[in-house]
Amino acid sequence: MYVILVYDVKEKRVSKMLKLCRMYLCWIQNSVFEGEISESKLKELISKMKAIMDADEDSVILFSNKMSYNMNKQIIGKEKMSTENFL
Amino acid sequence: MYVILVYDVKEKRVSKMLKLCRMYLCWIQNSVFEGEISESKLKELISKMKAIMDADEDSVILFSNKMSYNMNKQIIGKEKMSTENFL
Repeated sequence: MYVILVYDVKEKRVSKMLKLCRMYLCWIQNSVFEGEISESKLKELISKMKAIMDADEDSVILFSNKMSYNMNKQIIGKEKMSTENFL
Repeated sequence: MYVILVYDVKEKRVSKMLKLCRMYLCWIQNSVFEGEISESKLKELISKMKAIMDADEDSVILFSNKMSYNMNKQIIGKEKMSTENFL
């Protein structure tokens, strides 16, 4: 499935979250990732994120769509997207 | 159409961008917004964002989908979503 993931975590946990998310998805901006991921890999990612996060302070929003071709992406301004993807 | 908007702008322009985006979409986290918006209103928003942004430093990513029911949203951790929506 196609996933857009945005996180908002306290600074001290940012590097861990960044490293983790880059193992599963493609970093596109600041704290935003996207990519194709299987349901089982997504479950694995969520479980690992929960282990890092403080549920009282941190937040992750996951948008998912079974058909990525339904989503259009438009970038305005500077493209910060990484070409790395460790899917 | 259904839109997810994420911005990454220099600190001095954050409050202007936040104020602008909240007039069109629903704030859901940090620099992330979502909502239903007409194509003409979206064009208006993009034009106003471009007036605020520095294209060499700032970035906005817009994901859009004509059918919002195709998107699933899952929140992990603290829900920071606002109930305000000035659409």
